Amino acid sequence: MSQILTSSQVVAHMANGQEMSVPIYQIKGSANGPKVYIQANMHGAEVQGNAVIYQLLEQLKQLDCYGDITLVPLANPIGTNQKSGEFTLGRFDPITGTNWNRGYHFNPSLPAEFAAQYPDLEQGEIVARFRQLIISDLDARLSNPYGLNTAQHLCANLQRMAFEADIVLDLHTGPISSRHLYCPEYAKERAVLFDIPHTMFIPSDFDGALDEAAFCPWWQLQLAYQAQGREIDVAIDAFTLELGSQEWLCLEEAKKDCHSVLSYLSHQKVIEPGLFSPSKMTRYACYLNDYRALYAPKSGLVEYLVPFGEEVKAGQPLARILRMDRYGHDDAVELVYAPADCIPILHFASASVNQGTELYKVFTNYFTL
Amino acid sequence: MSQILTSSQVVAHMANGQEMSVPIYQIKGSANGPKVYIQANMHGAEVQGNAVIYQLLEQLKQLDCYGDITLVPLANPIGTNQKSGEFTLGRFDPITGTNWNRGYHFNPSLPAEFAAQYPDLEQGEIVARFRQLIISDLDARLSNPYGLNTAQHLCANLQRMAFEADIVLDLHTGPISSRHLYCPEYAKERAVLFDIPHTMFIPSDFDGALDEAAFCPWWQLQLAYQAQGREIDVAIDAFTLELGSQEWLCLEEAKKDCHSVLSYLSHQKVIEPGLFSPSKMTRYACYLNDYRALYAPKSGLVEYLVPFGEEVKAGQPLARILRMDRYGHDDAVELVYAPADCIPILHFASASVNQGTELYKVFTNYFTL
Amino acid sequence: MSQILTSSQVVAHMANGQEMSVPIYQIKGSANGPKVYIQANMHGAEVQGNAVIYQLLEQLKQLDCYGDITLVPLANPIGTNQKSGEFTLGRFDPITGTNWNRGYHFNPSLPAEFAAQYPDLEQGEIVARFRQLIISDLDARLSNPYGLNTAQHLCANLQRMAFEADIVLDLHTGPISSRHLYCPEYAKERAVLFDIPHTMFIPSDFDGALDEAAFCPWWQLQLAYQAQGREIDVAIDAFTLELGSQEWLCLEEAKKDCHSVLSYLSHQKVIEPGLFSPSKMTRYACYLNDYRALYAPKSGLVEYLVPFGEEVKAGQPLARILRMDRYGHDDAVELVYAPADCIPILHFASASVNQGTELYKVFTNYFTL
Amino acid sequence: MSQILTSSQVVAHMANGQEMSVPIYQIKGSANGPKVYIQANMHGAEVQGNAVIYQLLEQLKQLDCYGDITLVPLANPIGTNQKSGEFTLGRFDPITGTNWNRGYHFNPSLPAEFAAQYPDLEQGEIVARFRQLIISDLDARLSNPYGLNTAQHLCANLQRMAFEADIVLDLHTGPISSRHLYCPEYAKERAVLFDIPHTMFIPSDFDGALDEAAFCPWWQLQLAYQAQGREIDVAIDAFTLELGSQEWLCLEEAKKDCHSVLSYLSHQKVIEPGLFSPSKMTRYACYLNDYRALYAPKSGLVEYLVPFGEEVKAGQPLARILRMDRYGHDDAVELVYAPADCIPILHFASASVNQGTELYKVFTNYFTL
Repeated sequence: MSQILTSSQVVAHMANGQEMSVPIYQIKGSANGPKVYIQANMHGAEVQGNAVIYQLLEQLKQLDCYGDITLVPLANPIGTNQKSGEFTLGRFDPITGTNWNRGYHFNPSLPAEFAAQYPDLEQGEIVARFRQLIISDLDARLSNPYGLNTAQHLCANLQRMAFEADIVLDLHTGPISSRHLYCPEYAKERAVLFDIPHTMFIPSDFDGALDEAAFCPWWQLQLAYQAQGREIDVAIDAFTLELGSQEWLCLEEAKKDCHSVLSYLSHQKVIEPGLFSPSKMTRYACYLNDYRALYAPKSGLVEYLVPFGEEVKAGQPLARILRMDRYGHDDAVELVYAPADCIPILHFASASVNQGTELYKVFTNYFTL
Repeated sequence: MSQILTSSQVVAHMANGQEMSVPIYQIKGSANGPKVYIQANMHGAEVQGNAVIYQLLEQLKQLDCYGDITLVPLANPIGTNQKSGEFTLGRFDPITGTNWNRGYHFNPSLPAEFAAQYPDLEQGEIVARFRQLIISDLDARLSNPYGLNTAQHLCANLQRMAFEADIVLDLHTGPISSRHLYCPEYAKERAVLFDIPHTMFIPSDFDGALDEAAFCPWWQLQLAYQAQGREIDVAIDAFTLELGSQEWLCLEEAKKDCHSVLSYLSHQKVIEPGLFSPSKMTRYACYLNDYRALYAPKSGLVEYLVPFGEEVKAGQPLARILRMDRYGHDDAVELVYAPADCIPILHFASASVNQGTELYKVFTNYFTL
Repeated sequence: MSQILTSSQVVAHMANGQEMSVPIYQIKGSANGPKVYIQANMHGAEVQGNAVIYQLLEQLKQLDCYGDITLVPLANPIGTNQKSGEFTLGRFDPITGTNWNRGYHFNPSLPAEFAAQYPDLEQGEIVARFRQLIISDLDARLSNPYGLNTAQHLCANLQRMAFEADIVLDLHTGPISSRHLYCPEYAKERAVLFDIPHTMFIPSDFDGALDEAAFCPWWQLQLAYQAQGREIDVAIDAFTLELGSQEWLCLEEAKKDCHSVLSYLSHQKVIEPGLFSPSKMTRYACYLNDYRALYAPKSGLVEYLVPFGEEVKAGQPLARILRMDRYGHDDAVELVYAPADCIPILHFASASVNQGTELYKVFTNYFTL
Repeated sequence: MSQILTSSQVVAHMANGQEMSVPIYQIKGSANGPKVYIQANMHGAEVQGNAVIYQLLEQLKQLDCYGDITLVPLANPIGTNQKSGEFTLGRFDPITGTNWNRGYHFNPSLPAEFAAQYPDLEQGEIVARFRQLIISDLDARLSNPYGLNTAQHLCANLQRMAFEADIVLDLHTGPISSRHLYCPEYAKERAVLFDIPHTMFIPSDFDGALDEAAFCPWWQLQLAYQAQGREIDVAIDAFTLELGSQEWLCLEEAKKDCHSVLSYLSHQKVIEPGLFSPSKMTRYACYLNDYRALYAPKSGLVEYLVPFGEEVKAGQPLARILRMDRYGHDDAVELVYAPADCIPILHFASASVNQGTELYKVFTNYFTL
C-alpha cells in the first residue's frame, strides 16, 4: 500500500569519464513517523544486504509506512565492480588501501559549540537546528578547494541522505561469518529487537564508519549538554548489521533478515507496532574492547574447526594449521587454541594465511541479553 | 614400512632476492614398480591437494611401495603467497596474467623424429631412450640465451621431476566445485579406479598443462608409430584430479581422496594390488568438447541454484540474477536456464558477476561409465 | 570542414548493473574514399592514443575527408578503470588473466569456403560479399546460447565497427617504450608512411588481436584464391601503432603521431593526397620471429642502461641488476648482456623483477627500410 | 677501513611456509659515536634507497666510523615481491589495505610514567633506562596471546633494531616526486645538512611511521619533563628521506643521496666531522599542516604540467585533464589550477585518475631555510 519512488544518485566518476551511481528507492511516510535510511553493499563483496533490501521492498510496498524510508542497495559501485581473480576486492580503495567504510565525516567541534550556543533550546528545536548544522557542515566540506578523496566523495553522497534520517541501518557481512550487530551503547535495549544472536556494544568514538557518522554527532551532543548539566535524548538510532558471509546471495535467507529489520521498525513505529516481533533466541553480547581479533601465530594452510556461535573454552582448539613443508616434524600439523573463553563470530575467508593474518574474531567476556 | 626422504627444490627467485622452493617427499620403491609423481597446489588457492598428499604420506609410510613415489605439495610458492584482499590470487602470474598451469613444455617435433629414427626399437628401449630425449630437450630449453619466463621456470623444474615418472597426478580444485577428473582418452578404463563421479576425456592436444605435458609426448609417439604401421603402448598415465572447491582445507575429507588415489595406485601395482579398491558409485563422463562453460548473459548478483552432480534438463534454471538497480522492473530478478541437458560441475566463486563471467561449467552429452 | 558526429556504444555490463560504453566520433566521407576505423586504449594504461585521437579530431574537422572515419577512444572501459595501487591494471581481465587484446574473433574456415564457393567473382563483389559474410559470422557468435566471455563481448562490439572499415588502426603503447609498428607483411611498403622508427612485419597467423582480426580474413582469403590459382588484393589495411610508454599523456607529443597517421591517410586517399607526408628518418624493421623477449636471468633491482632505438652489439650490457641481499659478493651488482646484435624497443615498467620477468624486447636481425 | 658484518633477520612467514628475511649490514664503531640505523624500501616500489645503501656501504667501508651503523635494505620482503601487473603493489598489505609504514608501535603512556617515576635522573641515565623501557615494551607486545598482524610483526622486527640507535633514517620515495624530507620540528637546524630541497617540519604526533616511532617516545619524554619544569634534550634524531620517484633505480644518482647522508653523519660525528659537507642550494620548508594534497576535481586522463620544485602562483595551472568522452564540449580539455601559492612536491604515478585521486602534493605557506 506504499508507493516506491525510484531514483539514483551519482557518487563517483571513473577514469574513463563514466559516472557511477547508486539506485535509490523511497517511500513517503503516511504520517509523522521516524525517517529511515537503509543502505547495503558498501564493501563490494558483501552482497547479501541487497537481497534484504529486495525483501524489505517486497514487504514495505504492502504496508502502511508512517515515516519516510530511503533504501540504497549497491551503495558502492567502485567496490562492487572491483574484481581481482574470482573474488570481489571491494573492501578498500584499490589505489590507496583505504577502507571504503572509513570515509564518512564527523566534525568533533560541532556538538560542544552547539550546546554552548543553545543551552536552553527545547529538544524538538535542538534536533531540527543541529541536523541543519551538520548537513551544512557536510555540504561545506564538498566545496573544499583542495577537493576530497574518492572514498570521501562516495561517503559524503551517502551520508547526505543518512543525515536526513532518524534511523540508519548499514547492511554489511563478515568474511565467513555469523550474523552480528554493532549497537551503540545508548541503544542497548533495542539490540534484542533484531534476530541477531551476537551484539557488540560500541562507544561514542568516531572511526569513520556510517553508523558512527550517524550517531556520533548526536551522542556527543548529548554528552555536551550533560556537561552543562542537562539531559537530552540521543535523537538518532544507527546500527551496522552483519548478515553472515560475503560473496554469498540467498533470497530465501534474506527473508529472515527482512523480518528482523521489520521487527525493529515496527517497535520504532515506522510501521504498525506489533506487526512484526523479534524471534525467541539466546542473544550474546560483549563490549567492543572485548571483541578480539586472533592473528595467525604462524603461517600455513588452515582448517577452521569451530562452528560460529558455539561457546569455546580457553585452551580449546579453534583451528588446525597444516605446514606441508614440515611433514615429518612435530609442527607439520598444529592446533591454534582459544586464548580465552570466547564465541567465534567470524573467520578469515581463505584456507591459507601468512603469519599475522586475522584468523578469527571472537567475543570474550560476553554475556547474554 | 616405507621411508620418506625429504628434500626441496628452488623453483623461483623473487624481486627481493628470496629463493622460493617446493618441498619434495620421496619414497624409494622396494621393487621395479611404476614410478609415480604427484603434485598439488599449482594454483595458489587450490590447497586441498596438500591435505591429500599429507594423508597419502601417512598411508604410504605404512605400506610397501613397489615403485618410487615423489610427492610435491605447495608446488607454486609464488601463487600460494599471492594474496589480493582476503583471497588467494594464485591462478595466474600477477604480472602477465598467464595461467600458471600453462607454462609446461612440449616439443611437438620430437615424437615423429624419434619414430622415424627408431622404427624397430622394442618398447622397453623406446621408453628409456625417448624419456632421455624429452628430458634433454627440457634441459636444453633451460639454457636458452634469451631465458624463460617465470611460469616456464617454475614449470620446467616441476616437469623435470614428472618426466622421471610413469604415472603423473596433478591435484587441483575448481572454484566452487564437485570432484572431477581430466582423463586422457587412451586411459579411459582407468577413470573408474578413482572415486570421482565426473570424468572428462581429453584428446591428445597440448595446451600447456602438466597432465598434457606428461602424456602428450608419449601419446603422440604412439600416433607416430601408428602412422608407420606399428602399435605401441602409451607408456605414461597422467591425470588432473579436481578435488572440490578452492580456499578450503579438510584433513578428514582428504582421506577419501587419499583412498581414491591408493585404489588407482594399487591397481597399477605401485602398491599391493587389491589393497585398496574403488568405491561403488555412478560415474558420469563426457568428452572435453562437451564440457561447456556457460557465461553470464547479464551482469548482477547471483544465487546459484543447482547442487553439483545433479542432472539438469535443458530449460531448467541454473541460477538467479538479482539486479537491485532494476527493482520494480521485470528484469530485477531473472533466471538463467540450462541451454542443454547437463550436469553442473562447478560454478564461479563470487556472488556477483559481470556480463560474460563464467557462471557454470557443465557436462553435456554425458554418459555413465 | 568535416562534421563530427558523436554517439556511444555499450560494450560491457558490470556487476552492479552499470553499463559501460565507449564514445564514438564519426565523420561522413565526402566521396567514396576508404573507410577508416581508429581506436585507442584497449589496454587500460595505454592512454596516449586518446590524445592522438584528440589531435586527429582537431585536424580532421578542418579537412575534407573522402571516406567515412570512425574514431573510438577509451575503447576498454573495464581496463581503463581497473586500478591496482597507483597504476592501471588494464592489460588483462582481472578475473581471468585474459589479455583484453586477445578476445577478437576469426573464423578460419570462412576464407577457403568462400573462395571455393565464388571462384570467379570480381574483386569488388568479393569485398562486398565477404565483408557481409564475416559480419554475419560475428553477429551469429553473439547469439551463442552459452554466451561469450567478457573480453569477447567487448571485442565483438569493437570488431563490429572495425569490420565496416577498409583501414583499421589500433593505437597502443608499450610499457616503457619507443614508438613501434606492427605491420602485416603484405603491407610492407606502407610502413614508411608512418613516422615510426621501428616496424615488425607480422605473418598471416591469428593470435586474437584487433589488427589480426581485421586483416586475417582478407589475407587468408587472398591465400585461398592463390591456392585456386588466382591473385586478388588484400582488401584491408590494419596496423597496431605503439606510441611510446604507458601511464603517460602529452597532447603536444600527440601532434606528432597525429601527423604520422595523417600522412598515411593522405597516401591512402582518405584525405587529400600530399597534404601530409612522412618525415625523413631511419626506419628499422625486423620479422616478428626476430622480435625477441629477453627474460631476467636472475631476480633483483634493475637499472635499464640502453636508450631505446640505439643499436647494441651482442655482449654489450643492457641492464644492471642490483642484489642488496648479496652485498659483498661478486653477484651483488651484475650486468645483463645482449645475447645478439639488437635494438631495444621497450623494457619492463618496474625497477624490480622476478627471475623470468620480461626485461626487454629487442629487434634482432633487423634491417633498414 | 671499516669492516662490514653481514647477517639477516626473519621478518615474515608466508602462507606456503617460506620465511622472509631482510639483509642486515653492520659496522662496529671505532669509538663512542652515535649509533645509526638506516633502512630502505619499506614500500615495495620505492627501491632507490637500496642503491643509496649500496653507495653508503661502498663509502663507509673506506672510512673510520665512530659509532655503530646498521643498514637494512629491502626492508619489506612482502611488499617488494607484491606485483600487480607490471608494477609493484607494495604500499599496503594486499590482504587488509594497511599501509606497511603504519605498523610501528608507540606506547603513549610510557613517557609521562617514566618522567613521574624518575624526575631527577641525569640525562645519560634517562637515555639508558628509557631506551630499556621502550625495548621491553616492544618485546612484551610480541608475546600478546592474540598475536600481532602481519604489518606489526614486520615493523616490530625492524623497530627493534631502530630502538638501539641514536639516529634513524628511513629511505623512501614518492610516486613521481622530487626529493623531500620529513623532519621533526625539534631537529629543524639539521634539515639543512641534507642535500634535499624540500623539508616538512612534523609535530610530535604518532601516526605509525618509523620516524615517528623512533622520535615520539623521546620527544614526548622531553615534553613530560618539561611539564615537570625540567628541560632535557630529545635523545634521538629520526628522519624520513624521500629520494625521488618509485619504480626507478640509478646507482649514479644514488651517489648524490649517499653524499647527502654522509654530510649529516659527518656533522653528527658518526664519521669524521668536516669530511662531507652539504651542498649549497635553496632549501624550502613548510609545516606538515601546510603540506596539502590536491585531489582530482574530476576524473579523466591527466597531463601533469609543472616541474617539481617550481614555485607556482595561486590560479596557475598544475594539470590538464582530457576527457575523450566529452570531445566537442567545453570540458573535453580542462585545466586544474593551484588553489594557493605552492610548490609541487610529487604527483600521482598514473596518467588516468578517478575523481578524488590524489593528483598532487604541494607545499603551501612555505619559506626558505
